[in-house]
Amino acid sequence: MNVSDLRSLPGRDALVRQMRALMEELYPICRSITGDGLRETLRAIGRRIPLALSEVPSGTPVLDWTVPDEWNIRDAYVADSSGRRVIDFRRSNLHVLNYSEPVRRKMPLAELRPFLFALPEHPDWIPYRTSYYERRWGFCLSQRDLDALPDGEYEAVVDSRLAPGALTYGELLLPGETPEEILLSTHCCHPSLANDNLSGIALATALAQLLGTARRRYSYRFLFLPGTIGSITWLARNAEAIAHIRHGLVVACVGDAGPMHYKRSRRGDAEIDRAAAHALARSEREHRIVEFSPYGYDERQYCSPGYDLPVGSLTRTPHGRFPEYHTSADDLAFVRDDALADSLAAYVEVLAILEDNRRWINTSPKGEPQLGKRGLYRAIGGLPDPGRHTFAMLWVLNLSDGRHDLLAIADRSGLSFEVVAAAATRLAEAGLLEPAGSDLPAGGAVK
Amino acid sequence: MNVSDLRSLPGRDALVRQMRALMEELYPICRSITGDGLRETLRAIGRRIPLALSEVPSGTPVLDWTVPDEWNIRDAYVADSSGRRVIDFRRSNLHVLNYSEPVRRKMPLAELRPFLFALPEHPDWIPYRTSYYERRWGFCLSQRDLDALPDGEYEAVVDSRLAPGALTYGELLLPGETPEEILLSTHCCHPSLANDNLSGIALATALAQLLGTARRRYSYRFLFLPGTIGSITWLARNAEAIAHIRHGLVVACVGDAGPMHYKRSRRGDAEIDRAAAHALARSEREHRIVEFSPYGYDERQYCSPGYDLPVGSLTRTPHGRFPEYHTSADDLAFVRDDALADSLAAYVEVLAILEDNRRWINTSPKGEPQLGKRGLYRAIGGLPDPGRHTFAMLWVLNLSDGRHDLLAIADRSGLSFEVVAAAATRLAEAGLLEPAGSDLPAGGAVK
Amino acid sequence: MNVSDLRSLPGRDALVRQMRALMEELYPICRSITGDGLRETLRAIGRRIPLALSEVPSGTPVLDWTVPDEWNIRDAYVADSSGRRVIDFRRSNLHVLNYSEPVRRKMPLAELRPFLFALPEHPDWIPYRTSYYERRWGFCLSQRDLDALPDGEYEAVVDSRLAPGALTYGELLLPGETPEEILLSTHCCHPSLANDNLSGIALATALAQLLGTARRRYSYRFLFLPGTIGSITWLARNAEAIAHIRHGLVVACVGDAGPMHYKRSRRGDAEIDRAAAHALARSEREHRIVEFSPYGYDERQYCSPGYDLPVGSLTRTPHGRFPEYHTSADDLAFVRDDALADSLAAYVEVLAILEDNRRWINTSPKGEPQLGKRGLYRAIGGLPDPGRHTFAMLWVLNLSDGRHDLLAIADRSGLSFEVVAAAATRLAEAGLLEPAGSDLPAGGAVK
Repeated sequence: MNVSDLRSLPGRDALVRQMRALMEELYPICRSITGDGLRETLRAIGRRIPLALSEVPSGTPVLDWTVPDEWNIRDAYVADSSGRRVIDFRRSNLHVLNYSEPVRRKMPLAELRPFLFALPEHPDWIPYRTSYYERRWGFCLSQRDLDALPDGEYEAVVDSRLAPGALTYGELLLPGETPEEILLSTHCCHPSLANDNLSGIALATALAQLLGTARRRYSYRFLFLPGTIGSITWLARNAEAIAHIRHGLVVACVGDAGPMHYKRSRRGDAEIDRAAAHALARSEREHRIVEFSPYGYDERQYCSPGYDLPVGSLTRTPHGRFPEYHTSADDLAFVRDDALADSLAAYVEVLAILEDNRRWINTSPKGEPQLGKRGLYRAIGGLPDPGRHTFAMLWVLNLSDGRHDLLAIADRSGLSFEVVAAAATRLAEAGLLEPAGSDLPAGGAVK
Repeated sequence: MNVSDLRSLPGRDALVRQMRALMEELYPICRSITGDGLRETLRAIGRRIPLALSEVPSGTPVLDWTVPDEWNIRDAYVADSSGRRVIDFRRSNLHVLNYSEPVRRKMPLAELRPFLFALPEHPDWIPYRTSYYERRWGFCLSQRDLDALPDGEYEAVVDSRLAPGALTYGELLLPGETPEEILLSTHCCHPSLANDNLSGIALATALAQLLGTARRRYSYRFLFLPGTIGSITWLARNAEAIAHIRHGLVVACVGDAGPMHYKRSRRGDAEIDRAAAHALARSEREHRIVEFSPYGYDERQYCSPGYDLPVGSLTRTPHGRFPEYHTSADDLAFVRDDALADSLAAYVEVLAILEDNRRWINTSPKGEPQLGKRGLYRAIGGLPDPGRHTFAMLWVLNLSDGRHDLLAIADRSGLSFEVVAAAATRLAEAGLLEPAGSDLPAGGAVK
Repeated sequence: MNVSDLRSLPGRDALVRQMRALMEELYPICRSITGDGLRETLRAIGRRIPLALSEVPSGTPVLDWTVPDEWNIRDAYVADSSGRRVIDFRRSNLHVLNYSEPVRRKMPLAELRPFLFALPEHPDWIPYRTSYYERRWGFCLSQRDLDALPDGEYEAVVDSRLAPGALTYGELLLPGETPEEILLSTHCCHPSLANDNLSGIALATALAQLLGTARRRYSYRFLFLPGTIGSITWLARNAEAIAHIRHGLVVACVGDAGPMHYKRSRRGDAEIDRAAAHALARSEREHRIVEFSPYGYDERQYCSPGYDLPVGSLTRTPHGRFPEYHTSADDLAFVRDDALADSLAAYVEVLAILEDNRRWINTSPKGEPQLGKRGLYRAIGGLPDPGRHTFAMLWVLNLSDGRHDLLAIADRSGLSFEVVAAAATRLAEAGLLEPAGSDLPAGGAVK
C-alpha cells in the first residue's frame, strides 16, 4: 500500500475513535513546557506509536535560549477566610497561571487582584495564561467568579516546584525509501485545551499509525514537543537531521468546525506550499490559503531566517482566531469528530501529493508519441473531447521536459494531481517517461 | 508594397469570392490523411499558388510514427434486403467511417449496430468519425435515420483499398529578405467539413496570394498537410527548415460566426503570442486569448517539448467548441463570407506586426534629443496634449535601449503598434535610431 | 532632529505663510527659460536658502541641444488705430507669446489674426504659449476679447531682445552623512502661473529650509531650473554629481485641490517608487499611483535611457490634467494653503522613509531570539494578539536576511514603515541586528 492509497482513510471510524480516546485520556493532565504532565502525555502517545523521549537538562543552552527549570505542581487554590476554595486547581488546571512559582500568602482582595486574570468579553470562561520566563504566580478565573468575590481576606496557595530538571520531547522517525524527510511537528505543552492542541496530538498520532502501514518514499519525522522552547531545543541538537528536511507541516488546531487553513512557509512557493494549495483547491472543502507571518506556532522557529525550512502549517481555524482560543471553552466538546477525520484526510492528501510528485523526462519529445500503438489511446477518432485521462497523458508528455514536476503540470492543466500522477504512471510503464536526474532539486518549474 | 500595406485587404471582395470558390470546389471531395482525395485537394490549391507536393511512402518511419498505408475509396453503402441503399457514401462522404477497411457482409441489424455511429444529441446530423491506425469499418448516420432502420437483414459494403502508397503534403516557401521563417500550417485531411477545415485551406491560400505581392522581411512557409501524421512527417524530414522558424500559426476554423480566438504557443510569451494579443486587443473585434494546451490541431506537434516552436493558433470558435464540429452541419452554409474576410484581416494584422517589429537603439540616449530642430516637433509649446504621434516618438526614444522591441513599447505605452512603428520609422530616418545588434534575439523585453 | 522627526511639520503655519509669501513675490515676474525674470526669481529664492547660481552662455552645446539666446522683454502690446492698447503685456505677462522676437508692425485684423492665440473652450482665460526654438512673435488673449476686436488697423509691438546671454539655474547641496544624493528638481521658467510652478518653487524652498535643520543621512541636491533645457544643461555639466544620485523627485503642481499623484520612475520599482507608494498607501490621503510615461516635466530628462535615474514625480493633479493648466486661471487663488501644507507633509514622509530605510542582518537568525530576556517581550503569555510593536519586531527579525530592506518588510507585513523602522531601532540597540554590508545596493528584495 502506498501513501496515496491512504486517501480513502482505511479504518476511518476506528481512527476517529482512537483520536477521541487519546484526547480524553490527555485532557485532564496539567501540561506545561516541562514537567511530569508533559512526560505523562508523551508516554500516553508512546503507547500508541514507538516514540523516543529525550530529556534535556535545565540550563542547557539552546540557540539563543536556555532550557528553563522544570515546573511541577501538586495543588493550587485561593481560599476565603472560611477556608473555602473559591478558585481551585483541582477543578481545572487552567485556574493556575502556568509556570507559577510557589506561593502561600494571605492578603485582602485588593492586594490579590493583580494576580487574578479573567476575560471580561467572555465572562463565563477561564482564560489560559503563562509566565514561563519571568517568575510570577497568579490565578485565572471567569469574570463572573471574579466579580462575585466579596471583599475580605484570602489565602493564595500555589504548591509548585521550579527546580533544575529537564525538558522532555518525543520523536518518531518512520524511515522511507530515501533519507529525505517530511517533518510533522506538534506542540504538547498546553494543559486542558482540546483543539489547541490535543487535536493536533491526536491527529499526528493517527497519521503516524497510518503512515506506518504504507510504503513510503520519504522518511517521516514526527516531533511532539513543547511550543517554542521545544522546537528551539530540537533544532539546536539536530543540525544533521535538519539537512534532510524537504517538507514540513506544523500540526495544530485541527478539530474545530471551521474551514481548513493552510499557512504558507516563509518561502511562499515551496513544494509543500504548492502541494497544500493544490490539495485544498481540488477538494470540495471550504478553505483559506494564508500567507506566512512570523507568528503562530513552531513554524516561527522552522522558518526563522537561519533555517528557512519549507514548513507550513495546516490547521482548521488558525491560532488566536476562534473566540474559544486559550480559554476553558476550548474543551472536548469543542472538537468535532467529523472535523478531526476531515483534517486527517487533508493531511493524507497533501502527503500523497508529495510522495508522488516527481519530475519526468519525455523519452519521445519530438512530436507526440503514438499513443494508439501502445494501447493508450482510443481507436475511434474525431470526438471533440478525448476525456481527462487522455488530456492528462498529453499534458504530462508535453511538459515533462525536466523543468516541470507533476504538481506544476496539474496546476497548469487544471487537472487534479491524482489524475496527472496516474497518467504519468501509465506513460512510465509504457517507456515514454524516464525519471529526471535525481541530482536536480525536486521543486516546481525551474526558474 | 510592404506587408503592413496589406492591412486594408486590397481586393477584398475578389479574395472572398476566390476563397468561397475554392471551398465549393473542394467540399465534395472525400479527403483523408492519405489518398487521392488529398492529392486532388492539393492540386486544386496548387492551381492558385505554386505548391510543391511531396509523397512520402507508406512504411516510412517518421519520429515515433510510421506513414500508414494509403486509403482510397470508391463506394460504400448499407443496403436493406430489397437492395435499397439506406446509408449511401454517394450522398455524403461522412457516411463512411474514414479509413474503413474493405468489407462486404450481410448481417441482421443487431449485428450491424456496433458498426454504426450516430449523434443522439443532434438527431439530424451525421457525425464524422475516423479509425486511421486500427483496421475497422463502419458507417456514420443521423440518429433519426438510425432509429428508422427496421429490423432485418442488411448488406454493408465498403469498396475501399488500404495498401502501400504514400502520404502527400503541399508546401510553398515565399522567400523574404531574411531566411528566417514564419510558418503557416493548415490541415487538409477532413472530408466534407467546411469550417474545419476548408475555411483554413482557403484562408491560407488567399494569404499566400496576398503575401506573394508584398515585400517581405520574413520568408513564409505554407504547409498544407494531413493533421497529426502530416505535421509529424514534415517535422521528421525538415530538421534544417525547423531551425529557421521564428514564428508560426496553425490555420483552422476561420469561417464561423464566432469571435476570434488566439491560442498561445507553449511558451506563452513568444513574440507571436504578444503580436496576436496586441492585434486582437487593438482591434474592435470581440476576441479571446486562450492559454496553450496540448490538444487541438498541429500546434500539438510544433509545440511538443522536443521542438517547443513559437507556434500559436488563430481561429474563430476553436476546435471542438461549436456544436457543428465534426458533423454534417459544418457545411458550406456554416461558413460566412464576412467571417472569412475578417479572419484574413486578423492574420494580416498579426503578420504586419511581426514584419515591422524590431529593436532599435536610441542614438541620443542622454536627455531627449531636440526634436524641433529636426522638424519632428511642433513649434508652439505649452499645449497640454502633444498628440499621439509625438507621444509615440517620445516612447520609442525612451525605451529604445536594446531591451524593448516596438511591440513591447506599444504595449507599455498603450499606443497601437502601427503608430509606434510609424514613429520609429520617422526617428530612424532622422538618424535618432539605429538597429540593435542583429545577433540578439528579436524577442520582447530582455529578462 | 532626524528627518523622520520632521513628519509633524514643525512650524507648519509659518512654513505655509512663507510659501504663500514667496509665491506672491514671484507671481508678477515674467519668467522664461532664460533672462532677467528667471534671474530675479532665483535671487528671491536665494534670499531664503543659500542657492548657488550658474550662468551658462548662449551657444553652449548641452547634450543634443544648444543653450539659446537670452530673451528679455520690456513691453508688448497690440494697439488699435486710436492707440488704445487692446492687448497689454503690462496687465498680464501671459499676453505675450513667451520668447517672442521683437516686432513693431501695423496690419489689419485679418493679417494679425494668425499671431493671436485664444482658448475657445474657456473664453475668459488667457492661454500660455511659447516658441523657444523657432523665432516667432504672437499674443495670447481670451477668446472673449478676441471676438470683441473690431476690424481695423492694429499695431503689434513686442519690445523684446533675443541676444547672446546666458541660461541661469540655481543649485543647493545640503550635505549629509553620506555623499549619496537625493535630487529634488523644480522648474522655474513659467511666468504668472501659480500652481505650475510657483507652488513647486515654494515647496522646494520650504523643504530645503526644513531639511537644513535636520540630521541627514543623505545629501540633498535642490535644482531650480528652467524646464527641459535647464535639466539638460545641468545633466550635461554634472556627470560626476549624477553618479551620486540615489533617488529623486521632480517637484511640480503641488498646490491645487486635487489628490496627490505619484508618477513612477522609468524603472517602476526603484526604491523611490516603493517609498512613495508606501507613504501614500499608508496615509489617509486619496491618491493615485501613475506609471511612468516619457512626458511631463524634467523626469523626461532624468529618466531618458542614457541616464535612467530613479526619479519620480510627486504632484497633486498632474501636468495637463487640470483645466486651468497653462492658462491665466492658474492664479494665486487656485493654489490652496492646505494643499501646499499637505503636499509638503507628503514629501517629508517619503524622504523620512528613504532616510530610515536600510537592510539589516539578524545576528541571531536560528530560531527566534529570546526577546523576553532583553525586555522586548511582555511577560504574560497566551494572549492571542501580541500587538503591532511585537509583530514588527518578529517581522524584522524574520526577514532581516540581507535580502529585504525595511520598506520591503513593511510592505510584506502590512505594517507601516514607521512602526517597522522603530522596531528595527529597538532590535539594533539590543544587538539583534547589524547593518548589511554597505557595498550592497540599498534596493528592495534582491531578485
